[in-house]
Amino acid sequence: MTEVEKQRNNNEKRERILEGALKAFAKKGFYNTKVSEIASEAGVADGTIYLYFKNKDDLLISLFEDRMEWVIERLQAELSAVSGDSLVKLRAFVHLHFLLAVENRDLAEFITVELRQSAKFVKEYKNPKFADYLRILQGLIEQGQAEGLIRAELDSKLVSRAIFGALDEVLLQLTLSRSAPGDVVNESTQISAILIDGLITRD
Amino acid sequence: MTEVEKQRNNNEKRERILEGALKAFAKKGFYNTKVSEIASEAGVADGTIYLYFKNKDDLLISLFEDRMEWVIERLQAELSAVSGDSLVKLRAFVHLHFLLAVENRDLAEFITVELRQSAKFVKEYKNPKFADYLRILQGLIEQGQAEGLIRAELDSKLVSRAIFGALDEVLLQLTLSRSAPGDVVNESTQISAILIDGLITRD
Repeated sequence: MTEVEKQRNNNEKRERILEGALKAFAKKGFYNTKVSEIASEAGVADGTIYLYFKNKDDLLISLFEDRMEWVIERLQAELSAVSGDSLVKLRAFVHLHFLLAVENRDLAEFITVELRQSAKFVKEYKNPKFADYLRILQGLIEQGQAEGLIRAELDSKLVSRAIFGALDEVLLQLTLSRSAPGDVVNESTQISAILIDGLITRD
Repeated sequence: MTEVEKQRNNNEKRERILEGALKAFAKKGFYNTKVSEIASEAGVADGTIYLYFKNKDDLLISLFEDRMEWVIERLQAELSAVSGDSLVKLRAFVHLHFLLAVENRDLAEFITVELRQSAKFVKEYKNPKFADYLRILQGLIEQGQAEGLIRAELDSKLVSRAIFGALDEVLLQLTLSRSAPGDVVNESTQISAILIDGLITRD
């Protein structure tokens, strides 16, 4: 095997383990999943997992980072294709948040439910990918403030947090109730109406 | 001991165990806390805990229900003392949510962080107390719709979820960063501004 082939082989195995972990967590939850069950989902030997990840917490965080990178790339690509002002883009952001979740249920469940079960993740991990996600949202708020469309006195960081919280909670309910994708247009329209109409400047 | 004294004694012991659990969870997190550590915080024998609670999950849920009952009573009392329309009451609700949290940090951390670490709690438990909490919020939205102050086309249940999510996320950040109580006025004012101004009817 050449070095390039070896690297490709490594990447494929790593991806298979991450995918196996996602499936295993969706079935039994983070705490109840054994490393051997992840190995079995991934079709690798138990020991192989430790060649790629230190422990289950490390696997959880790597899985999150890897998938969030994908989410962020997709968000950026879709948002840059939207023509319009910051409010149009914010509505698209809200819609995409729900859409990506219903298209990827295991991932949505992982992010809204399983991830929080790791105290390490919630309390110690700095979470650079989530910071990237929030930065996109905060950037849209600030763009809106610069355009004079969003009230200048609002703290863009606090507002991004609040919007994320609203999206996340509604999504948690959708995920737990396993709602059909069709439902999401209603959710996304109503949440946009509340949050965004609450942000616009008024005379 | 009379039956009344026995009952009082039982209630006191149960409360001591719940208080011990709250302290122990705040220190080490739900998953890392052993039942023996709760017993030691509460000043009771290990076995005593099992006279009152089936297991650690049962203790977690009982603690949540007990404390939420207190939160709900306090919310209802304070809200009924507020004179004004539904928007005034909604602003008071948002403020109280933050205020109760900074006044009771261990409880806030328990509700925003620890509770979610129990898969049983998130996925299986029906959560009647949280439903009561949401019902207060939903009631205020519906009152506002009846008064013509809040847009009639909004789904009051969905809106309550979204508002709760926004409050909860901002609170999680405050709790993890252990912000001083003084900060909360800013948070509560801004969150009210976003959420409530986004709800009002407009011509």
